[in-house]
Amino acid sequence: MALIVHKYGGTSMGSTDRIRNVAKRVAKWVRAGHQMVVVPSAMSGETNRLLGLAKELSPAKHTPALARELDAIAATGEQVSVGLLAIALQAEGLESVSYAGWQVPVATDSSYTKARIESIDDKRVRADLAAGKVVVITGFQGIDPEGNVTTLGRGGSDTSAVAIAAAMKAAECLIYTDVDGVYTTDPRVVPEARRLSTITFEEMLEMASLGSKILQIRSVEFAGKYKVPLRVLSSFTPWDIDINEEAASGTLITFEEDENMEQAVVSGIAFNRDEAKVTLLGVPDKPGIAFQILGPVAEANIDIDVIIQNVSHDGKTDFSFTVHRNDYARTMELLQGTVGPATNAAKVAGDPKICKVSIVGIGMRSHVGVASKMFRALSEEGINIQMISTSEIKTSVVIDEKYMELAVRALHKAFDLDQDAANA
Amino acid sequence: MALIVHKYGGTSMGSTDRIRNVAKRVAKWVRAGHQMVVVPSAMSGETNRLLGLAKELSPAKHTPALARELDAIAATGEQVSVGLLAIALQAEGLESVSYAGWQVPVATDSSYTKARIESIDDKRVRADLAAGKVVVITGFQGIDPEGNVTTLGRGGSDTSAVAIAAAMKAAECLIYTDVDGVYTTDPRVVPEARRLSTITFEEMLEMASLGSKILQIRSVEFAGKYKVPLRVLSSFTPWDIDINEEAASGTLITFEEDENMEQAVVSGIAFNRDEAKVTLLGVPDKPGIAFQILGPVAEANIDIDVIIQNVSHDGKTDFSFTVHRNDYARTMELLQGTVGPATNAAKVAGDPKICKVSIVGIGMRSHVGVASKMFRALSEEGINIQMISTSEIKTSVVIDEKYMELAVRALHKAFDLDQDAANA
Repeated sequence: MALIVHKYGGTSMGSTDRIRNVAKRVAKWVRAGHQMVVVPSAMSGETNRLLGLAKELSPAKHTPALARELDAIAATGEQVSVGLLAIALQAEGLESVSYAGWQVPVATDSSYTKARIESIDDKRVRADLAAGKVVVITGFQGIDPEGNVTTLGRGGSDTSAVAIAAAMKAAECLIYTDVDGVYTTDPRVVPEARRLSTITFEEMLEMASLGSKILQIRSVEFAGKYKVPLRVLSSFTPWDIDINEEAASGTLITFEEDENMEQAVVSGIAFNRDEAKVTLLGVPDKPGIAFQILGPVAEANIDIDVIIQNVSHDGKTDFSFTVHRNDYARTMELLQGTVGPATNAAKVAGDPKICKVSIVGIGMRSHVGVASKMFRALSEEGINIQMISTSEIKTSVVIDEKYMELAVRALHKAFDLDQDAANA
Repeated sequence: MALIVHKYGGTSMGSTDRIRNVAKRVAKWVRAGHQMVVVPSAMSGETNRLLGLAKELSPAKHTPALARELDAIAATGEQVSVGLLAIALQAEGLESVSYAGWQVPVATDSSYTKARIESIDDKRVRADLAAGKVVVITGFQGIDPEGNVTTLGRGGSDTSAVAIAAAMKAAECLIYTDVDGVYTTDPRVVPEARRLSTITFEEMLEMASLGSKILQIRSVEFAGKYKVPLRVLSSFTPWDIDINEEAASGTLITFEEDENMEQAVVSGIAFNRDEAKVTLLGVPDKPGIAFQILGPVAEANIDIDVIIQNVSHDGKTDFSFTVHRNDYARTMELLQGTVGPATNAAKVAGDPKICKVSIVGIGMRSHVGVASKMFRALSEEGINIQMISTSEIKTSVVIDEKYMELAVRALHKAFDLDQDAANA
């Protein structure tokens, strides 16, 4: 008997028939002897419907008072879901009780629409589990120190589930989703992409932040921090498949490197075509120049991803960074209008038609030559590398976006990630 | 400057356009210098939609655990409304904040789906009002001592509004509804029915319980108990009508009899065709007989309205009462099967085709001859009276249902309630 947390997405909760199937699946786990906590999302479309109504009425100016109301409204979507699921579980003959975030309570800070969980009181939930109840808890939301309802931002239910699993010291947190696991890369780009049976938190973090949008990145950080075994698995299997088969399916995100992980130097290829690059050419290489450039960018609320500054010559250097493509025009305007002249840059250049391709793998830490193998594979396809950025477990390159698919396929093959290679 | 509570029904909150109109109306009151607390219902149809989803999933057996979830789900309808209205008020340039019942908190007992308000903490709301904010509070709901969400039952938002007005010692509680006030009787039956500019709580209680379903009866009890001036007025007037005209419109339900009220002996004619009568003929007139008859009926959860027992002759008496027409078959079965034989009744008789017509008026207390005037008016129309029941401010008769409209019209005229009579 173990304490297990299940998280179901909005698609799984999309109709009363689907909710009934979720209840049957959870009931199967209960009958196998597990204590169960379930975190369902709002019914699909519901959060958008609620925020759509709110938007029609909203003043032009976004204020904290407005954000507070948006959170209170959006949080009701999950509050309906937990009640419906608790009722469906009762119809399955189980005892069940639902809680909104404020009832647990799930304590957060006061950053409306993007609050952070600070603590979870497990007393009430633990008493219910001990009494044989299935506990259903809202995802996506909590309560701040002043008693206001807060939400964690889009995808926040993943984070809620992991945080609850951490607070309860659950044996495993299972995230039922519309993909059946984490792949070596996007199968739409590389048909030979292979599902990973395990991946480390660090790798998953790099994969998630690079555009594998399976899990909210914060949920992975949480899982890593509190060492919660996290499994991503399909919600599309029939509810009555064998529980052992279900329990071993999907991808397990682990906090330990097991031995055979050593063999896979690179676990996956991530990519992102939502970026644009900008460069200040010929800026004086002097202390404070980076802040002089990026300070105004940050003040304008423009997020920066990759930053590159190479060694200087003749006291001048080139300073490049990437931003979200939606921020490209604003960024160029800012650089050309004020930052470029202020830093005495010789020229401001930019290109929105780029993409970032990364190889990710915890094995890279102890293997030399991984990056050069990557560069060789790209070179063999005639792909020019515009920028390079590396971390302990990741090497990213910025290239022309038209080569993205080609680069991903070439790297997938070069690092033996193809289905056939794995089966061989 | 006064503290005013407004309550808006589901129709007024039925769309974002209508919510915007509510916000404009409230803004008008704020600009006239009032401190405002607003209690909106859920958007029309929303409570039914939510409970419909729940019903699809519910187990056959109704348990407290199920009722708890139904309340948590239903309560979200008002939680969305208050957020949307607070946002619409912000768009009007006002500061506004919304609270769910649990946030105020509105403390109730634990009777899910029909909870009773026990206390309201006004500290938070008062601080917001002092800071110049419009406070929007959910109707229909509260929180029990264990931190569970409870609802007050259908129409509960009226009760919430009055209870909040009482707790805040508001100058007046205005209930905006789809009728423009309380009438002397149903205008669909008597086109000459006249809107009353004032009515006492006692009269309103008799009118409401007798079928004038304008306000939840408990809200009127609350208003009477805590002496909250309560006004029923139309939500269909344009939001920008003159505020003094609006403030004087509708019907004011007062807790004081003013002088000119003395002149109106009868304020209105109420009626109800949802009843059925049953009679035990020739039961022994001995101590305990009433309990012997009605005990089993109450145990079967059958509500009883009028009870009549006349003087006995030859040690036997006839015992009659009325029940809701839906309970008629069950009641007859119970009387014929067990209660009749057990009490040695000579015969059990019943009739579902009856109705109850009542004259209501606080002036009846000090005026003799009111009942006889009623009986004469009915007699002149050839209407036979089957049962008579009286209270301090009400006289009710049970008659054949086919005479209902005729009786109501005759009484309306006999007591000079017609429009023309009032204007003369």
